[in-house]
Order: sequence, then structure tokens, then C-alpha cells
Amino acid sequence: MKSYLKLEEIFSTQNAIEGAMAVLHWDNAVMMPEGGADVRAEQLATLTTLSHDLLTSPQLTDYLQEAEQDTAVLTDWQKANLKEMRRLWTHAACVDSRLLADLSRATAKCEMVWRKARAANDFRGFAPYLEKVLAIVQKIAKVKADYLGCSPYDALLDNYDPGRQSAEIDVIFAKLSAFLPDFTTRVLERQHAAGAPLPLTGNFPVAQQKELGIRIMQKLGFDFQHGRLDVSHHPFCGGVPGDVRITTRYYEHDFLPSLLGVIHETGHALYEGHLPEEWRHQPVGKAQGMSIHESQSLIMEMQACRTPQFLSFLQPQIVEAFGVSGDAWQERNMVGSINRVKRSLIRVDADEVTYPAHVMLRYRLEKAMITDDLRIHDLPAAWNEGMQELVGVTPDSDKNGCMQDIHWPGGDFGYFPTYTLGAINAAQLFAAAKKAQPSLLDSLAQGDFSLLNAWLTEHVHSKGSLYGSANKLMIAATGKSLDVTDYIQHLQSRYLG
Amino acid sequence: MKSYLKLEEIFSTQNAIEGAMAVLHWDNAVMMPEGGADVRAEQLATLTTLSHDLLTSPQLTDYLQEAEQDTAVLTDWQKANLKEMRRLWTHAACVDSRLLADLSRATAKCEMVWRKARAANDFRGFAPYLEKVLAIVQKIAKVKADYLGCSPYDALLDNYDPGRQSAEIDVIFAKLSAFLPDFTTRVLERQHAAGAPLPLTGNFPVAQQKELGIRIMQKLGFDFQHGRLDVSHHPFCGGVPGDVRITTRYYEHDFLPSLLGVIHETGHALYEGHLPEEWRHQPVGKAQGMSIHESQSLIMEMQACRTPQFLSFLQPQIVEAFGVSGDAWQERNMVGSINRVKRSLIRVDADEVTYPAHVMLRYRLEKAMITDDLRIHDLPAAWNEGMQELVGVTPDSDKNGCMQDIHWPGGDFGYFPTYTLGAINAAQLFAAAKKAQPSLLDSLAQGDFSLLNAWLTEHVHSKGSLYGSANKLMIAATGKSLDVTDYIQHLQSRYLG
Repeated sequence: MKSYLKLEEIFSTQNAIEGAMAVLHWDNAVMMPEGGADVRAEQLATLTTLSHDLLTSPQLTDYLQEAEQDTAVLTDWQKANLKEMRRLWTHAACVDSRLLADLSRATAKCEMVWRKARAANDFRGFAPYLEKVLAIVQKIAKVKADYLGCSPYDALLDNYDPGRQSAEIDVIFAKLSAFLPDFTTRVLERQHAAGAPLPLTGNFPVAQQKELGIRIMQKLGFDFQHGRLDVSHHPFCGGVPGDVRITTRYYEHDFLPSLLGVIHETGHALYEGHLPEEWRHQPVGKAQGMSIHESQSLIMEMQACRTPQFLSFLQPQIVEAFGVSGDAWQERNMVGSINRVKRSLIRVDADEVTYPAHVMLRYRLEKAMITDDLRIHDLPAAWNEGMQELVGVTPDSDKNGCMQDIHWPGGDFGYFPTYTLGAINAAQLFAAAKKAQPSLLDSLAQGDFSLLNAWLTEHVHSKGSLYGSANKLMIAATGKSLDVTDYIQHLQSRYLG
Repeated sequence: MKSYLKLEEIFSTQNAIEGAMAVLHWDNAVMMPEGGADVRAEQLATLTTLSHDLLTSPQLTDYLQEAEQDTAVLTDWQKANLKEMRRLWTHAACVDSRLLADLSRATAKCEMVWRKARAANDFRGFAPYLEKVLAIVQKIAKVKADYLGCSPYDALLDNYDPGRQSAEIDVIFAKLSAFLPDFTTRVLERQHAAGAPLPLTGNFPVAQQKELGIRIMQKLGFDFQHGRLDVSHHPFCGGVPGDVRITTRYYEHDFLPSLLGVIHETGHALYEGHLPEEWRHQPVGKAQGMSIHESQSLIMEMQACRTPQFLSFLQPQIVEAFGVSGDAWQERNMVGSINRVKRSLIRVDADEVTYPAHVMLRYRLEKAMITDDLRIHDLPAAWNEGMQELVGVTPDSDKNGCMQDIHWPGGDFGYFPTYTLGAINAAQLFAAAKKAQPSLLDSLAQGDFSLLNAWLTEHVHSKGSLYGSANKLMIAATGKSLDVTDYIQHLQSRYLG
């Protein structure tokens, strides 16, 4: 017990360092002047090293071994905490800390270059920095793979989604690949036959968009005493539980990307905000990997907030916020417009039906990059070819092609699949929540998210990492592991129902 | 040499931790939602401990001793760096960490009580908490004094202004006390005879104040590629060299406090921004204590920006920014209004002439508190008596009297003198700069600060802590140590010239 308690102390310290880094990362994206990049990179590299040193100290190794020899005295939460400590230790201890510091510096630099190069559509200027990041990620993946006894790519997956294997993703993505192309064509045909909805055009001042976004965040249950909404180039949910910071970006000619983005990030924020408070400083108190995290954003953005029920609540809010009128702003037209399917270039702007194709492309390419089957130099061509095959369109530029996402410049290889796995989990969780709470859809029509939040808090948020893997959490919450059935049924019902 | 290089490595790490904390402190004051306070306190406490542990490790003690035995191999910068390392080590290592933790708790509590008690004018409710803080500060001062071989109060001074001695301050303040009362009376008589300037009243929207502030910051040489301007309750200059963050606070009925505050903080920011880049991560690369830091804010706010030359540049900027017109906005009236002298109760609102009296009062009282010659119980009476004697007014309440500043509740005894020593240094540096650059004043009339900045960068900013004390820096820059001559001459020329 003494060793276990020592471990809690060390991981609590490590958690505070990681929390400080989370705020600094938010600051990087939202506040930092451009010239601050170098000194910030040094700060982050130093904190990364300190956190890593804590995880890899010989003392901690001893405590882990001692605690694992005497688990009978531990509660279930403590046992789960110990397991998660061991997982974190494994990911940290097998990699040289200098390699992690190299990665921290390389990604800070690459992200900074990416911001400019993307705007200038300058892939050649960007490529050397991405190459450097990839080379370091490959080294890290190799070391972890040897240690974990899996492929380098699976070792990367495990970092974002504990226990996830590419073999399982391959099966799921094969089913989706078999379903989606035909389905998409049928949806598009049906849309074509029904005629295009009137466009939701106009001028939507940022101040009004922000006000509407904040009002909807409050409806969803976002706690502004413990969080903020700001602007960044690439929207994200950052900060720490107790101080959750989401971002969006505004387009004056179109309010939907920001509004739906804010709803998406609020889903993430609710998860962070409802994690069990007494375990916040411990590994077991963290979210259960990114495929569950993404399910929480998508259950808001794609499941709850695009139901006819919630859209009937949202429509008058939009009309009031922007002072708009006319046929375009009738509920039916708005629903048709918001749920419009279109083959397009940009993942973050993609609709629910074509989004998985964007993800499957990135999954394919990053797996190939990690195994050196695809060189950075050849990325634009491979991207464009894959877009034509999977999404059915070819990018007009690298800016709207392989340079659109921050993930790879940020060193996040193995992250993309969690978006679509999250969508599948979201459909499964929403189906279970509706079954458990028969009046859930009616409550959404009142803009009331308390039933949904209560169910999610009980079955997902309050569990932290108690179950140890996404699939185990899904079984406990819904009675079954990752499964495309509810997801496919959801798509069929919404788009062809 | 090996030990010295190890020291550079450790202090570089410690610098990065302190830098991360500086950004988090900025975030506390500018961005953090209220509910984030607890988790932020954990982050800061953890980083404080990590930084302190680095400074007080037995290994570091060994490296210091080894390096000090072989200084012949070091350059002048490295020797100065080593001295500054030893000074930092002394302040950190000779005090028991439990005593520092006691202070941290006591000041956190006292500051909290102070906020409420001050608003309620409740000195009796506040006194016990201040007594507790004072008792701990006395203990710490005693330990440091024994170690450094000086008086307890001098040990406190050394923390803010390395090498500063109260004997020297006594001499300077005696000269000022002999000069100021008579001088102030003469200035007020002259003002009275000339008649009051027209008030600069109006409504000054925050957006326009901010725009003007930014324009003036740019003129002064603030680099927005490496810094920001934001809003906080108490204005300050924070962040780190390379990412300097200043704040202000706007009043819609009066633009002057913000504009002059922005100029003041920009002076601090220029110092931080121009510190020698290659030494930024080392102790010798830091600013030369607070009396020099304050001189850099005051050389902008009080010396350069209140010259008739710069005010002739500023006047049309103000007129344009706010679209104002009429006699009040003529240059002569504006100059009279900006340089107006008045006996008043609040230090932070005091003018250039009466400000030193506020500081001399605090210096006298805090020295007496440290030596137990003044008990907290007797502070209000001593304060009010001193205000009448030194400033010429008696406070109407403790709220506007001895409870107005956060310094003592925050444990900062020994800090106040640096304000007036800074003003004296500023006058001395400005006189030397004008002598070296005969066209300096003419350039200010064009809103051109390049001559002034070049001189300050060469003689002050780029030196970091190379000289080891404010007086040595002043001798190198101006040919003489701390001296009131230039300061008195400046006051005479501005207010009676």
C-alpha cells in the first residue's frame, strides 16, 4: 500500500506538469505572438523532460513492481489506476527522453511553419519540417513496437486509444468501405431528386455568432466558471478539467461551421468537465482514450444536435440571433441545409456521410508513411489520388489537400482513426441512451440536455479510465463492443429514412 | 569548467520552468475563468517546488563550489553568471523550505482577507493576518541576514535589488526629504497662480484607447512579434523575454491612466525584450534588479514621454484618436493637465513630485516593522502621522491609508524603495543619454525613440546582470553611482523651469 500511495503522489505531480503544459499549448494556439515560438518550445521541451523523468525514474519502477505484488489491498479504482500507471510507464520508459525532447522541438517548429506554408500553399517549404517530424515519430514507434510486441503503427494507436489494434480497424473500415460508396451515391441521388435547399447565405457578424455559440454552449451544459471559448486557427478542446478551453473560428459569410464546431468541442468539454473530481490528478481519472473522447463530441454534434427535435429548438434561436427571415430560414429548409451531403475537399467541413472517407484516406496514408511505403515527397500525389478514389473529388491545391490538418505537423500519427471510431461509438451510445431514457428526444426539442448529460455522465464521463479500454467501456455502457450496426442504421434512418 | 557547464544546464532548466510559470501567472490575471483557480494553484505549487528543488539540490551545491575554485578559465560573462547563481542559491537554500511554504500559505490567506477587509475598511480584521505574514518574513530575513552578514532588512532588499543597502537609501532619502517639502509647496503655489488647466473630460471608448495605446507602444519600439497588450485588474509586465506581455486597465471617462500605464509597462517590456539573447536562459541574462527595471519604465513614462517634445508629438495623436476638439485639447493645456501636481492619498495615482513621499513613508514604516520598532497594531496611527508629515494630507480611512497596497499582505517587504530609486536612476540615465545623443529630444518630437532605445540597449538592456549590482551598472552607464542631483535638477526644470 505504501508503494501504491507513493505512486499516487508522483503521478499527481506529473499531472500538474502536464496540466501546465496543456495551458501553454492552448496559449500557443490562441494567444502567443509568433516570435514567442522559440522560447515556448524550450519551456515545453523542459516540462516534457521533467514529466518524462518522473515517469521513468528507477524509483517509480520499483514502486510499480512492489504495488503490483500486493493488489489485494487495493480498491477497484486503485487497481485500474495502477494498470493505467503501468501503461503510461510503458509508453514513456521505453523511449529515450532526448528523443521526446527532439519531437517537442520539431513539432513546435513544424506547426509554426505549417501555419504560414498552408496559407501560401507552399508544400515544398513545409515538407522538410514534416520529414523531420516523421523521422522522429518513426523512431519512437519502432522503439515502442519492440517493447509492446506489436507493429509500429499499432504502438502509435495505443497511445491515443489504449488497446486499439489496426487489425480491428481494418475490419471495421472494410465494412464501411463496402457500405458507404453505394450509400453515398443513393443519398446524393435522393438529394438531387428533392432539389437543393435554399442557401443559408447572409452576413453573420462575429459578435453575433459568438453570442449564439455561447448561448448554445450553455444549453448543452458548458460551465463558464470552469472554461472559456476563444478563437484559434484550428478549433480544439484544451486546458484541463476544472479549466476547459475550447476554440472555434468564424466565417462572416457562413455561421454553420463555427456553430457546429462549438457544439462539437462542447461535447469534448463536457467529458473533461464531468470526469470524476476525486480522481482528477490520477491516470484513472482521465478520459478513456480518443475514440471515446470523439464519441462525446460527435454525440453532441452529429447525434443529438442534428435530430429534428433539437433542430426545431435551434431554428428560432438562429433566426433571432441574426435577424434573418424568408423561406431559407424555415425549419425544413434549414434541416435540409444542415444535413446536406456533398463530396468535398476539407475534412473538418465534411458532412457526416463523407467524413469517414476522409479518415480512411488518412489512415491508409499515415500507415504507409510510418512503414516508409510512402515518402513525404510523394504525399501530395498519393493524397490527391486517394481523395478521388475514396471521396470522389480531387483537391485543387495542397492547401486544400494534404496540408489541411495540423495532426501530422503536430506529430500525431495514429490519431485520425479515432474520429470515425468515435462516430461509431457515438451512434451506439446514443441508441443506448435513447433506449434508457424514452423521453430524451422530446427533451432535446426543449433545448434541455439534462437527460442526455445525466446518462453520459453516469455511463461514460464519471468512469474515467476505470475500464482500461474503449471496448470495455462500450460493453459496460451499451452491452456490446465496437460495432458498425447502430452507426449504419443511424445513417440510413437520417439520410434515406 | 565541467562543473560550470553543468550549472548552466541546470539553471537553463530552472529558467524554462520559471518561464512557464510566468506565462501561467499572466494567464491567471488575464484569461483564467474563476473556477480554474484551484487546479492552477496546484500547477504553480508543483512548478515552484520543482524549481526550488533544482536550486537546493546537493549536486548543485557541489558544482557551485567546484566552479568557484576554478574561475580563471571563465569569461567575464561566465564569472558574473556564476556570482549570480551563487546569489540565487543563497536566497533559496539558506531558508528551510517549510518556512517558505509557511510564507506561501500565510500570504495567500492574508491577500484574500486583505481584498475584503480593504473594501470594508476593516483594519482590525486584517491585522492578525498581516502580523502572521510579518512574523514569517522576520524569521526569513533573520536567517538570510545571518548567512549574508547584513541586517535583516538589507537581506530583504538584496532579494529585489542585489547589493542594495539601507544605509545608502537613508542618505538618498534624507536628501530628498530636505528638498521635496519646500519644492512641492513652491510647485503648488506656481500652479495655483497659473490657474487650473481645463479638465480632459469626455467619453473614451475602450477600442479607441486600445488602438492609441498600441500605436504609441509601436512608436516606443514594442515588438508585437514578441509580445502582447491585454487587460487585467492590476496592470503589469509579465511573460518572458521573447514573449513579453503587458496589461492595462481602461476607464471610459479618463484615457490618461491607461495611456500612461501602457507607456510605463512598455518601458519594462523594452528592457525584457532587449536583454542579451544568448544569455536569456542564464541568471546573468536577467534584468539587474528592480531599481533598474523600474528606471526603464520611468524613463519612458516620466522622462521621455512627458517632455514638451514628445507631448507635442502626442497631442495630435490624442486629438485624432478620440475626435476631440476645443481649448482643453490644445497642447499647452494638455501638458499642464498631464504634469499636474497634487497632494493625494493613493500612491499608484500620485504624480511625479509627491510619489517619493509615499515611498519614503512605506520605507520608514516597513524598516520599523522588521525590527519590531513598530507593531502592526500601531500601523494606522503611524501611517496617518507620516502622511501628514511627508505628503501633507491625512487619510480619511485605513482603506485609503495603510491598507491600500498589496505588497505587505503579499510578503513583499523591501520592495517599495525600488520605485523611487528607479525614478532617480531614470533621471540619471536620461541625462546621460541626452548628453551622448544631442538630438535625442528632437527625435522624440518626431515620435522617434530609436536614439533613446539604442543608448538604453547599449548601456542597460544588453548588459543583463553582468555588473552584479544596480550601482555598478549606473557607474558604467553614467559615470556615477546612485545620486539625486540629476533627479532634483529634472524636477526643478520641469516644474519650476
